Amino acid sequence: MKLPIALSNRHLHLSQEHIEILFGKGYELTPSKDLSQPGQYACEEKVDLVGPKGTLKGVRVLGPARKQTQVEVSLADARALGVKAPVRDSGDIDNSPGAKLVGPAGEVELEKGIIVASRHIHMNMEDAEKFGVKDMDIVDVETGGERAVVFKNVLVRANPSYALEMHVDLEEGNAAGVANGDLVELIKIG
Amino acid sequence: MKLPIALSNRHLHLSQEHIEILFGKGYELTPSKDLSQPGQYACEEKVDLVGPKGTLKGVRVLGPARKQTQVEVSLADARALGVKAPVRDSGDIDNSPGAKLVGPAGEVELEKGIIVASRHIHMNMEDAEKFGVKDMDIVDVETGGERAVVFKNVLVRANPSYALEMHVDLEEGNAAGVANGDLVELIKIG
Repeated sequence: MKLPIALSNRHLHLSQEHIEILFGKGYELTPSKDLSQPGQYACEEKVDLVGPKGTLKGVRVLGPARKQTQVEVSLADARALGVKAPVRDSGDIDNSPGAKLVGPAGEVELEKGIIVASRHIHMNMEDAEKFGVKDMDIVDVETGGERAVVFKNVLVRANPSYALEMHVDLEEGNAAGVANGDLVELIKIG
Repeated sequence: MKLPIALSNRHLHLSQEHIEILFGKGYELTPSKDLSQPGQYACEEKVDLVGPKGTLKGVRVLGPARKQTQVEVSLADARALGVKAPVRDSGDIDNSPGAKLVGPAGEVELEKGIIVASRHIHMNMEDAEKFGVKDMDIVDVETGGERAVVFKNVLVRANPSYALEMHVDLEEGNAAGVANGDLVELIKIG
């Protein structure tokens, strides 16, 4: 019942409209590195995030473009910006705070979209069957080593296109003392 | 079996020798705020930490002076400095990395002393009896809320002078979504 874990640093997903405001009319993102989830990639492009209290410079853009812009930060990042970012599943950005995005060609006053991503596990249908879980299940995940933790309330996302991986943010990963690719254990509950 | 948790941001403890190099001959620290552990206090004084890769500016000094200088940072801080800081109990600094400390009156080239503090619980003897544990026991601690975790490998330090409190670093606290004073549950193991 083991699967690999991956740590997400702060990053953002942009709508095509915002890509063109920040980088120029007709601009297309430049993929620099494939991510583990099929079709997802890190881009060459970076954006500055300006909040009421501070700025996070050079935040990495992930591609491809999405329907709505979403910024994923840690709780420490949110505090540095001066916003109260809620812990949310990806895509759930209603009533989240915004910030100013600054690119080389322009600025976007984002009204919402800054979240702390909830930890979650990606898997395909064969993995789900093997682990005995289904899409939207909540499980526990235990890590090993001197900083071992059990993460409670971990959301399972099962989709034919997903690669098996648990996603946590940098603070969660550091709190557990884990590195990308370390194996962790899924524990079914209830 | 509940106790309050507290989050430690990066800070340092200084030897009297280093206090005088950094702040001037005969200098004494200026207490600004009492900490929960009796006799411990935050000071007005701050020091810059300069590592091979980066600088952490304005790191808070805690008092009183100790026998040996010890710098407590997060794993993210250590990465920003460019050093590999081990996870250690307070006082156990052999074979840990150093950095340059920069104060208003001088600099110290620290040869060792940068650690990531192991999470631990302070309690007095009455608390230890109530919880059914003793000094140097290892326990689990469970937090509540949407980011609930179980911290494994938590060291109990029982001493007549201690106030009941669990100490974690900022990354551990943020990973669990807890704030200073939140109650967490001690779980005996074995």
